Amino acid sequence: MRKIKDIISEKPWVAYAIFIGTVVVVFLAGLFGASIVERRAETVQRFNLVKDIPEYEPRNEVWGENFPRQYESYLSTADTNYMSKYGGSKMIDMLEREPNLVVLWAGYAFSRDYNQGRGHYYAIEDVRKTLRTAVPQPATCWTCKSTDVPRLMNERGIGEFYKAKWADMGSEVVNAIGCQDCHDPKTMNLRITRPALAEAFQRQGKDITKATHQEMRSLVCAQCHVEYYFKGKTEKYLTFPWDDGMDVAGMEKYYDEIEHVDFIHTVSKTPVLKAQHPDWELAQFGIHAQRGVSCSDCHMPYKSEGGVKFTDHHVRSPLSNIAGSCQVCHRESEATLTANVNERQDKVKELLLAAEEAIVKAHIEAKAAWDIKATEAQMKPILTLIRHAQWRWDYVAASHGGSFHAPLESARILATSIQKAEEARKELAVLITRLGGKYPVQLPDISTKAKAQAFIGLDMAKLNAEKKEWLSKVPAEWDKQAAERQSKMNK
Amino acid sequence: MRKIKDIISEKPWVAYAIFIGTVVVVFLAGLFGASIVERRAETVQRFNLVKDIPEYEPRNEVWGENFPRQYESYLSTADTNYMSKYGGSKMIDMLEREPNLVVLWAGYAFSRDYNQGRGHYYAIEDVRKTLRTAVPQPATCWTCKSTDVPRLMNERGIGEFYKAKWADMGSEVVNAIGCQDCHDPKTMNLRITRPALAEAFQRQGKDITKATHQEMRSLVCAQCHVEYYFKGKTEKYLTFPWDDGMDVAGMEKYYDEIEHVDFIHTVSKTPVLKAQHPDWELAQFGIHAQRGVSCSDCHMPYKSEGGVKFTDHHVRSPLSNIAGSCQVCHRESEATLTANVNERQDKVKELLLAAEEAIVKAHIEAKAAWDIKATEAQMKPILTLIRHAQWRWDYVAASHGGSFHAPLESARILATSIQKAEEARKELAVLITRLGGKYPVQLPDISTKAKAQAFIGLDMAKLNAEKKEWLSKVPAEWDKQAAERQSKMNK
Repeated sequence: MRKIKDIISEKPWVAYAIFIGTVVVVFLAGLFGASIVERRAETVQRFNLVKDIPEYEPRNEVWGENFPRQYESYLSTADTNYMSKYGGSKMIDMLEREPNLVVLWAGYAFSRDYNQGRGHYYAIEDVRKTLRTAVPQPATCWTCKSTDVPRLMNERGIGEFYKAKWADMGSEVVNAIGCQDCHDPKTMNLRITRPALAEAFQRQGKDITKATHQEMRSLVCAQCHVEYYFKGKTEKYLTFPWDDGMDVAGMEKYYDEIEHVDFIHTVSKTPVLKAQHPDWELAQFGIHAQRGVSCSDCHMPYKSEGGVKFTDHHVRSPLSNIAGSCQVCHRESEATLTANVNERQDKVKELLLAAEEAIVKAHIEAKAAWDIKATEAQMKPILTLIRHAQWRWDYVAASHGGSFHAPLESARILATSIQKAEEARKELAVLITRLGGKYPVQLPDISTKAKAQAFIGLDMAKLNAEKKEWLSKVPAEWDKQAAERQSKMNK
Repeated sequence: MRKIKDIISEKPWVAYAIFIGTVVVVFLAGLFGASIVERRAETVQRFNLVKDIPEYEPRNEVWGENFPRQYESYLSTADTNYMSKYGGSKMIDMLEREPNLVVLWAGYAFSRDYNQGRGHYYAIEDVRKTLRTAVPQPATCWTCKSTDVPRLMNERGIGEFYKAKWADMGSEVVNAIGCQDCHDPKTMNLRITRPALAEAFQRQGKDITKATHQEMRSLVCAQCHVEYYFKGKTEKYLTFPWDDGMDVAGMEKYYDEIEHVDFIHTVSKTPVLKAQHPDWELAQFGIHAQRGVSCSDCHMPYKSEGGVKFTDHHVRSPLSNIAGSCQVCHRESEATLTANVNERQDKVKELLLAAEEAIVKAHIEAKAAWDIKATEAQMKPILTLIRHAQWRWDYVAASHGGSFHAPLESARILATSIQKAEEARKELAVLITRLGGKYPVQLPDISTKAKAQAFIGLDMAKLNAEKKEWLSKVPAEWDKQAAERQSKMNK
């Protein structure tokens, strides 16, 4: 020991260095400790609730008092500037952009009016405004639009809710999609509030209450972002057609077996299946879902504000927030990642348009065959081909983001759609020729929305006038009644 | 300083601890240093060449004396046990498995004989044995089969080499694909030895000598694993059809413009384009290539033996070496990664078979139309549709691994193939009906390779007997001459 003492007495800086080093380390440890304590404090504050929220509270602003960060980010969804990419904050008129859609949906309300969605915040406003709700619709149509739905289902019973008329529920359903739809007001845990999803799981022998938190971060979305139909002529019971599989062929089989028809095509007489939006089902075929990435991971990624990490409730396309979503995992630049997404979407879009074109022609050629006295027996197998082609096309067309979520499965589905549509056209070509008809069939001018709507016989002036009249009277009355009802709730 | 001295004199263990700690750290540093020195030694040894290799040395075993690890791993490619997955070490007879192929290639040597490739090691043996080389072929066919080719091109000139007859080069081309094809014998740098790739780059205004090392790790493969044709009736000059783009549509345009025809289909009279193997081009559309992953990264990944890291020359499917290839980047299990690959391949395969079926029927229906006196003018646009459909189908079918390398692009191409084939069938259906023919056209029984070959009029007994006779005489003579020639080289 004497020797070390000697070293220090000879080189005193060694001792100084040890001392100063220790001081620096202890200081940094202190700073780190403080930062942990500070973050804990804020995190606790998150559950430092200002008020109790009742079980069926539909108003987002009430929940927002307890959860200002989540509520504020939810309110950001009111901003539709992201649409500027497509030319201003106006919704895209999809029928204007692709007039083929008018013909594809001839006989269905979508041929009147189909705009780009503006998101959850505008759910009530937009569903009131669309010409699609000028047709008598069941209350089932409200199911995915509002936080008032769980309350109404509880008050009236699920079946009774579905059975009512859409127009009769106007004053009851006034709060747009929000907190109540996905959260338990006591624990803030994610929960399923819409029965159709839980029922579909049950029929498959699965218990949705056993889902993990990460699964729930997708399943709350799957309450609505799925394929569904209204079962029963009067019951209109919201049902997911998953019993024969959650893929395009399984659902097609399911619908065929129960002979479900969404509408009879007014041009071709095809018994058409309208796909809703099998977003969740199609996404399961993609690599992100297969790697356990949830909807929320990309559309509502975690975010930090001060010391608090929370889920960003500004639900949106990850392309509007690449740094917060994609780049959490992917180390490529925003430009590269955007190009990767665009490439997938462009390729799928190319096939989507090819399928569309073939199916539109098939509808028009089918009409030509009917016009020259084709028989039901001759037409039946052809209309089945058109039905399946259109179902498969619509399955991809209606799936928000499907071309990115599952590009290969989307392309595969569209390839089978194209095959079936072209096969139908081949059979029609033979039939028309045999019946002595003119072939190729003369195609009408459907190059604009207006021309296409005229072709399928829609009196748009009348429909628009009726809706304008309705909008000038009814919604204000609904809102008045709702305000009165809600002011009673406040007491 | 007195105080620290005091501390040590009071607590002598502090000094001991510092001393022992220092000893341990120095010891570990020594071990680490030794390991570095050891690895360096082995790495240097790698270039400690046993002998000089002449510029055009074709024999892999000669190169192997300097590079035992690379050579040994190259020799592993002789092992075809990986084929056991498909039932033994026998090559799959593709025509037996998919008799539709016989009809698709009616009029081309592929309809006689088409086996699964056994890889580079067997290139010479297999090209001698196939019935495809019983047809007179130009020497151009040897270009990608042997390390003797750069030597011959140097001795005779590139154009003269291509112009020769395949059969006349038998004793000169005897060493299978190997070292010489990709490496500079002096520096071992990767280099391009086949002129067609460099020439194609040049026509695009690119200088292949400027390629980075990582690019070269794919480009040496792209010397052969690409789409090409033999330009000129007698010149048979190996040319890549890339001047209008390196995608399926660009090459189709190129071939159409020069009216290139690989063969006239004996059933339908279609002027068919036979795709070679646009592996590299198609792979560029996939995410791996887009992320800068080279062919070698997965098919010849780095490997460690002792202290030496080297490129594994056991060229093979990454699925046979998931730990060494995929798992270098992907943290999923072998089972998961295999399932991911299989899913992509299955989906593309589904569309491949759908395209195949439609094109086979189109060929047969075209024959039915000719049989009832369809005119050239009536048939021309239809045969163009069949030509394009088959080109697109073959583009994917011939692309080794394309369904994994670029699944979405493969599916997109196949969807357009299906569309064109079905459109051709529609036009044929109308034409046959108008000409008073029977529709649907009766399809022949082509359920086995033998039945399909009988349908297209091949006398397989004769072809096999001729090849057997040839094999019993010629190759042994070639090998004898080659051995004499090479023994002179050794002196």
